[in-house]
Amino acid sequence: MGCNVDSIAEKLAEKQKEISIGEFFERNKHILGFDTLTKSLVTAVKEGVDNSLDACEEADILPDITVKIDEIAYQEYRVVIEDNGPGIVKRKIPDVFGKLLYGSRFHDIRQSRGQQGIGVSAVVMYGQLSTGRPTIVRSKIAEKEYAIEMEITMDTKRNEAEIVSEEVVLWEGKEHGTKFETTIKGLLRSGEHSVFEYLKNTAIVNPHARITFHCDGDTTVFKRATDQLPPPTVAVKPHIEGIELGTFVKMAKESDRRKLGSFLVNEFSRISYRTAREIASKADVDDDTNPSSLTLDECKRILKATSKVKIMAPETDCLSPIRSMLIKKGLKNVLKGYRPEFYSPPTTREPRVYSGNPFQVEVGLVYGGDLPSEGSVRVLRIANRVPLLYKKGGCATTTAIKNIDWRIYGLDQRGGSGMPSGPAIIMIHVASTRVPFTSEAKEAIADIPEVVDEIERGLRECARHLRTHLNREKRRKKISRKFRIVREILPMIAEKSADIVDRDVPPLETVMTKIMGVVYVEKSFDWENGVCRGILDINNYTPKEKELVIYIEKPYPETELLKSSIEPAFDGEYLKWDIESLSSSKGESIEFEFDGGLEKEDVGGLEVYVEGVKETSLIGAETLPDDWGVELAEIEKE
Amino acid sequence: MGCNVDSIAEKLAEKQKEISIGEFFERNKHILGFDTLTKSLVTAVKEGVDNSLDACEEADILPDITVKIDEIAYQEYRVVIEDNGPGIVKRKIPDVFGKLLYGSRFHDIRQSRGQQGIGVSAVVMYGQLSTGRPTIVRSKIAEKEYAIEMEITMDTKRNEAEIVSEEVVLWEGKEHGTKFETTIKGLLRSGEHSVFEYLKNTAIVNPHARITFHCDGDTTVFKRATDQLPPPTVAVKPHIEGIELGTFVKMAKESDRRKLGSFLVNEFSRISYRTAREIASKADVDDDTNPSSLTLDECKRILKATSKVKIMAPETDCLSPIRSMLIKKGLKNVLKGYRPEFYSPPTTREPRVYSGNPFQVEVGLVYGGDLPSEGSVRVLRIANRVPLLYKKGGCATTTAIKNIDWRIYGLDQRGGSGMPSGPAIIMIHVASTRVPFTSEAKEAIADIPEVVDEIERGLRECARHLRTHLNREKRRKKISRKFRIVREILPMIAEKSADIVDRDVPPLETVMTKIMGVVYVEKSFDWENGVCRGILDINNYTPKEKELVIYIEKPYPETELLKSSIEPAFDGEYLKWDIESLSSSKGESIEFEFDGGLEKEDVGGLEVYVEGVKETSLIGAETLPDDWGVELAEIEKE
Repeated sequence: MGCNVDSIAEKLAEKQKEISIGEFFERNKHILGFDTLTKSLVTAVKEGVDNSLDACEEADILPDITVKIDEIAYQEYRVVIEDNGPGIVKRKIPDVFGKLLYGSRFHDIRQSRGQQGIGVSAVVMYGQLSTGRPTIVRSKIAEKEYAIEMEITMDTKRNEAEIVSEEVVLWEGKEHGTKFETTIKGLLRSGEHSVFEYLKNTAIVNPHARITFHCDGDTTVFKRATDQLPPPTVAVKPHIEGIELGTFVKMAKESDRRKLGSFLVNEFSRISYRTAREIASKADVDDDTNPSSLTLDECKRILKATSKVKIMAPETDCLSPIRSMLIKKGLKNVLKGYRPEFYSPPTTREPRVYSGNPFQVEVGLVYGGDLPSEGSVRVLRIANRVPLLYKKGGCATTTAIKNIDWRIYGLDQRGGSGMPSGPAIIMIHVASTRVPFTSEAKEAIADIPEVVDEIERGLRECARHLRTHLNREKRRKKISRKFRIVREILPMIAEKSADIVDRDVPPLETVMTKIMGVVYVEKSFDWENGVCRGILDINNYTPKEKELVIYIEKPYPETELLKSSIEPAFDGEYLKWDIESLSSSKGESIEFEFDGGLEKEDVGGLEVYVEGVKETSLIGAETLPDDWGVELAEIEKE
Repeated sequence: MGCNVDSIAEKLAEKQKEISIGEFFERNKHILGFDTLTKSLVTAVKEGVDNSLDACEEADILPDITVKIDEIAYQEYRVVIEDNGPGIVKRKIPDVFGKLLYGSRFHDIRQSRGQQGIGVSAVVMYGQLSTGRPTIVRSKIAEKEYAIEMEITMDTKRNEAEIVSEEVVLWEGKEHGTKFETTIKGLLRSGEHSVFEYLKNTAIVNPHARITFHCDGDTTVFKRATDQLPPPTVAVKPHIEGIELGTFVKMAKESDRRKLGSFLVNEFSRISYRTAREIASKADVDDDTNPSSLTLDECKRILKATSKVKIMAPETDCLSPIRSMLIKKGLKNVLKGYRPEFYSPPTTREPRVYSGNPFQVEVGLVYGGDLPSEGSVRVLRIANRVPLLYKKGGCATTTAIKNIDWRIYGLDQRGGSGMPSGPAIIMIHVASTRVPFTSEAKEAIADIPEVVDEIERGLRECARHLRTHLNREKRRKKISRKFRIVREILPMIAEKSADIVDRDVPPLETVMTKIMGVVYVEKSFDWENGVCRGILDINNYTPKEKELVIYIEKPYPETELLKSSIEPAFDGEYLKWDIESLSSSKGESIEFEFDGGLEKEDVGGLEVYVEGVKETSLIGAETLPDDWGVELAEIEKE
């Protein structure tokens, strides 16, 4: 044993060599999302569409994307993705499509779908690997009359594109855009993990995009829901929170700044000169020190000091959250005719930072009604406006959900951990300048503690609303029961007593009011042929006269009010009725109709808010959240 | 909108550039296993130890590895890993430790722990990133008198090592080996996801390794359990099954062979000339065709034809399964004093292929006894003899477990899918020339359909044993009840009847035998101070005389028999007693003692096998599996 060790080290040395990044990914294609035939198709479409959306948004163009899938042989598909983006200049086409780790957004600190410069080249590589065929790219930029069409393969050993053919073509009716045609081995499936599902969900969270899907002879158009592009994201400087010491040292060494103070202020976000001085003083380093001469220990002290100084949360303009309405719409869209009893107000959390990268979490939740109560709750996962369909088990969203004891919020959960079960759907969006995906396929979010924690907080916010709702429902039911009893028994007691003392039966209304002590709202909604009819019955069972304001959210901001039995005081994104005086023991009824084009699902979640009564004295509706008063007043002013 | 599209394509072009692999991983350190502080430490140790084990095995050296962890500042640790491997020649040290994607095993088709040439360089990178400090590598090869010590950092932009310092040192008492010292940010935890747990499990599945762990002033030595190195794995040619068309085309283009036939025979494993001719004929391609002139369509037909021709399963010598005994030992080791009632015979499946890569699945299962019956079953995951501690949710092992309806095998499972619960522990080992890990951190196995399917088959094999056991237990209990009833009631009936007809009470033994109709084995084991006492009571309640052979597995092959009331016919890896004649209604008892050094857990799973009686007529023991007869006879001969 060990006898021929002498030669072994040399022998091993001969075998040690560089591994090409291309060959590495070729052999580990599953890391890029090509592990099963069904997924391969989804991945190919996803990478193409993500690129198109990013390019359009960057060029301030409303995206118009066409995806076409044809089976051309057994388990072999032609995938064509065409957009109206700015196009790609000729000299860059080979690298963008035929070189892994080549892109424009890697060094930018702002939210975008693609970042790593791997995705679409990986599709070219997998097409070639699985079918032996090149990918055809056509691109037209606005300043040229003609388009360029190239056939591209990838030399994985050198990680370089090879141009098989190249020609100039006329692209009729196209001002600018890119078309990408590849042939890959795959399997077209329907259902939860399908291309269709991916495109549908993409359309929901990107309502400014028009997506046309030709598949198997069928054409589906996901129409544009708004002509408003999301506000463009702006590249920011790194945030100092959680930044690695090594990164900080490197930045200091490479900085052009001559003083620590201006280095901190100019190369990090959200640091003022005052904060910089505070950091320097807490770190016991002179703020005039040249950053390139900082010692390792000084750098360490500076980073430590930043955690003791209050630094503002990161800028939000590098991020593009999807906001309440889209979260709600996203949830509605997967309901497929179910009508949940409760829509939790969606949560958009404040941005936070992990390892210097800003991120923001949004959560929505619907519950009850006729949603299936068997099995685990359903989860919609979205990262930077891209729906995630795979690797649920290994995703930070799942970790966060499992970390919560849902029983205290009213959901079933075996043993108080693991996936909760019951009639609920949860939607989670993580937006970041760098979403920490678990692999290059961008299918799941890594369990970064800060991210998991923030998702948990978002979930708990929604969960608390759910608990409040369930408690209120319980209370409403109890009060309804009390109501019924009071209504039936009180008159009998009164009659009997009156009989015994030989007097007239006294008026009971006020007694009942004393017993109840609440404002009671009964709402009922009806839907027929796109029209929604609603009735709100408001009863003042409190001893005092009330001045009430009633709010109801419209299903969509553009929904029109057709008629209303009481003239609303405001008709815009929501409706508002003033009930200036409602005497004790009296009621008021509002009947109204919303305009057509509504889906049945749109009607389920209409929330009624009442101003002018305490939460504990209101049954059947919600009080207006504290911070809404000012906000609504501003909307009304516009 | 779209107004400044002209300049946009050019503007974007300016930003498009190559992304350095080093910078890519630096920003995505979580992909390399550095997403949490606790995991960072485990990852660093794992990468170092994996490298050491691979190097030792390659050089035919019994590994002797020392791991040392010291906290040197708040959340900052020094990690030192030293081995007795062959060492690394001086000129290769910088690349091996300071360059990502640099290694010796990437192009080999055989099982090894490391393959990608990323792991240990990633540790150097993370050390530098998180603490700003270089890594110190010391290496001595056998042919030199002195060792080389280098301080290394990594230039991530160029993906190149930078040598900070270099010196020649004497390494006393060391013939050859490598020592690796790095400083990283981390957090030392105990429990399921700890360095200790990783080393313990590594020691179990690598019993030829001696691992010493110094940590926090404590020293733990995981002793060598065998001086036998696992048989060295041999590099093989790719298997043609599931190989990608693109890979096949490339191989054909680059082949030196002049004829298709010899190309298939010489560049793929397990293809004979006859098979090659059959493939060519089924593909309708002349087997004299020059492979480099094959058309894409011909290549496609050839691959299609291979699926219609029987090609042998891949060679097994490229793989290194851990085998039954280690599976059992691995399971025992996590029992921590629990005594399960049932050890399923571990399964080592035949090798199979995914995308041309041979792989092999092994499964073990223990059940019942005092194992906790609350919560999910526990799972031990191992890949190429490396324990996997993280990312359980996103692992093929979990997918396979969840795919099975465990209720039919006797475990609880809500709704027949998801993780089963109950008193069970499952161990799964996947060995492959290329384990399809979900990311570069090698924490979980991707859901490759062939791999998931094979794990499922292994699980089902063990699960069937469990079901058989549970059914047998049920039957045994039923028969015991019957027994008791028969014993109590039969004499009473006999007495009464005899009384009525005024005769003597007849002998009942034979009647009871007729009613029972089984050989009944009662076993009891006792453990005290490392000595195991066993009693086997064998009762022949069948109407015929029986010639029986009784087998009992030893806890370990080296376990010694101290005494036995009946002289065994064989005493080796197991014990065998011949009971040449056991009359109907008679019993026999064997008492024996096993030698010291046994753990309490070793005694729980001792299985008794009986030859000479049908399975349906045997209670309390197992019949000898069909294929064992020949195998055991051979062991006895040796």
